[in-house]
Amino acid sequence: MPRHSPEPPAPRARMTPDERRRQLLGIGLRKFVDRPVQELSLDEVAAEAGVSRGLLFHYFPTKTAYHEAVVAAAGRRVLRTVRPDAGVTGEAAVRQIVERYFAQIARRREFYVAFVYGRLGAAAGGAEAAGVTAISLRDNISELVGDALGLRGERLAIAHAWVAYAEDRALQSAARAVGEAGQAGDVDHCVQALLALLELPAVT
Amino acid sequence: MPRHSPEPPAPRARMTPDERRRQLLGIGLRKFVDRPVQELSLDEVAAEAGVSRGLLFHYFPTKTAYHEAVVAAAGRRVLRTVRPDAGVTGEAAVRQIVERYFAQIARRREFYVAFVYGRLGAAAGGAEAAGVTAISLRDNISELVGDALGLRGERLAIAHAWVAYAEDRALQSAARAVGEAGQAGDVDHCVQALLALLELPAVT
Repeated sequence: MPRHSPEPPAPRARMTPDERRRQLLGIGLRKFVDRPVQELSLDEVAAEAGVSRGLLFHYFPTKTAYHEAVVAAAGRRVLRTVRPDAGVTGEAAVRQIVERYFAQIARRREFYVAFVYGRLGAAAGGAEAAGVTAISLRDNISELVGDALGLRGERLAIAHAWVAYAEDRALQSAARAVGEAGQAGDVDHCVQALLALLELPAVT
Repeated sequence: MPRHSPEPPAPRARMTPDERRRQLLGIGLRKFVDRPVQELSLDEVAAEAGVSRGLLFHYFPTKTAYHEAVVAAAGRRVLRTVRPDAGVTGEAAVRQIVERYFAQIARRREFYVAFVYGRLGAAAGGAEAAGVTAISLRDNISELVGDALGLRGERLAIAHAWVAYAEDRALQSAARAVGEAGQAGDVDHCVQALLALLELPAVT
């Protein structure tokens, strides 16, 4: 908090560095859904945040650094929303993960698709960077599932691929706008699907 | 064919329009794997093809048109390689599709990931264009599977999501470089996975 406040300062002026960083990433999360990275100017981001270009560069020294930070923030956002409640384990935790993954995709389909398949995920780096977002998201979600069910090795690899299965079901369900009942049926199907896949004989 | 050839023309000069188009798309398929669309100049493509910029524009009037044609060609290429042999149906056809999908991803992992998740797929259009490549590829492959097994409705939706499952297994398998035996085990697992998923109770 500033020590002297002769008149009420604009709320933004009082942000801590952490709040400022989150604000700047939040602007990027909205903007990169609409437009490819090359069309976004950092001046525009600075103007929207009500800060100078110099301050923006203090947080993100290059446009690529900003873009990468936004992509990473998008990944964290999805992951945070699908995490099961503390203390919930086993099949109940898997059901929460699937429900929340479906809800996230239904609520923000455009953001999700841009993030995973589109321009938001297509980082500015070399070809080896392509796909990193989608694959690291699957790594992280399958880890939550693995923790819930105590999976390792081949069974964790099954959970990894099953995340792709559940994502496709969620995208189909969001595209058809199935409503809550339809979504609950699809969530149940996905939980049953994982259990069935884990029952398959081990790959030799 | 040029009417006057005082000296032997370069082989490229004799291409039919179809061959020329394929040549130009082939150059794009290689180049867009290495670099984002905004970094590729059409002059470079024309030079590599040994044609004038004017001739290139005759085939593709804008860079966006060229980019979109390359993305569509990438999709056709993947689809062509996974198609089962004529006359093969049922589980045998599914096995061929999976084998060929795995082989395609193992042979050209970088191309595949750039195409589906990366810059090649992130078309120049609006956000609604994001994900179109990945999703239309799944549409097309699941249609092949649906034809092989006579699937419709909910069972076709299962096959659609299962394509995402098989793709993830193929990407994991290519990343681990499991070799032929490991790949055969993974292919078998994917076929069994589809059959198990199709046995699940219908979504209500």
